[in-house]
Amino acid sequence: MDPFLQAAIDEAKQGLSEGGIPIGSVLVIDGEIVGRGHNRRVQKGSAILHAEMDCLENAGRLAARDYQRAVLYSTLSPCDMCSGTALLYGIPRVVIGENRTFQGPEEYVRSRGVALEIVDDSTCVQLMRDFIAARPELWNEDIGV
Amino acid sequence: MDPFLQAAIDEAKQGLSEGGIPIGSVLVIDGEIVGRGHNRRVQKGSAILHAEMDCLENAGRLAARDYQRAVLYSTLSPCDMCSGTALLYGIPRVVIGENRTFQGPEEYVRSRGVALEIVDDSTCVQLMRDFIAARPELWNEDIGV
Repeated sequence: MDPFLQAAIDEAKQGLSEGGIPIGSVLVIDGEIVGRGHNRRVQKGSAILHAEMDCLENAGRLAARDYQRAVLYSTLSPCDMCSGTALLYGIPRVVIGENRTFQGPEEYVRSRGVALEIVDDSTCVQLMRDFIAARPELWNEDIGV
Repeated sequence: MDPFLQAAIDEAKQGLSEGGIPIGSVLVIDGEIVGRGHNRRVQKGSAILHAEMDCLENAGRLAARDYQRAVLYSTLSPCDMCSGTALLYGIPRVVIGENRTFQGPEEYVRSRGVALEIVDDSTCVQLMRDFIAARPELWNEDIGV
């Protein structure tokens, strides 16, 4: 297992243990984790703290030259918001745990020059399948449907 | 002057008075402002609190049926992140103060069914022109270049 994807999964599980939505993310630069986070809709009453957003916020204010050699990991295919944030900052590569339970605008993100790697990790899939079955209304709120 | 765009400009000026980046935003539902915000990169050391993000966060957790009849006002053309957030939540209309000093992915956002109205307001333009001339490095950081 890629240790960075594992770290994102650990974040997702941390979120679940807090009563939140089990999606996690880490930002890696030069082989080191510089930010980590998980969805905090429930925990902070937040409309914008998806896992990737929480991760990037926790990474702090970085320069363009930092983002431009970063890899963003997420346990789930990034939504329009989180994909847009990767585009804003010119993050060149995104590693995605799975895109079976939700798929963001992957084709558009690729068309903008971002490399997406879909791992199709069974733990990531199971976390989301169990969560969506248990809390469909919360999940729908999180993805605006 | 549209009172909602004026409210967004007031937010932008508030941000400037705090030493921040002068971009403001309001969210309007059924003719009432339900959220307002301004860029807080400087004030909160934030990588994600662009004006529109701050506004949506301050509006709180809303249901899809609320976003789907909302209008998002911003003094400046929304970047990839903020445009993606409007897409995530299915906000059908965005009123933009100006897009001369910065232009987000307007064509893509329109292709996804969002109505964009460009006001081309001279106050919005001047706020950004003065700010970019005074603090180019901060502005570049905010847009990832």
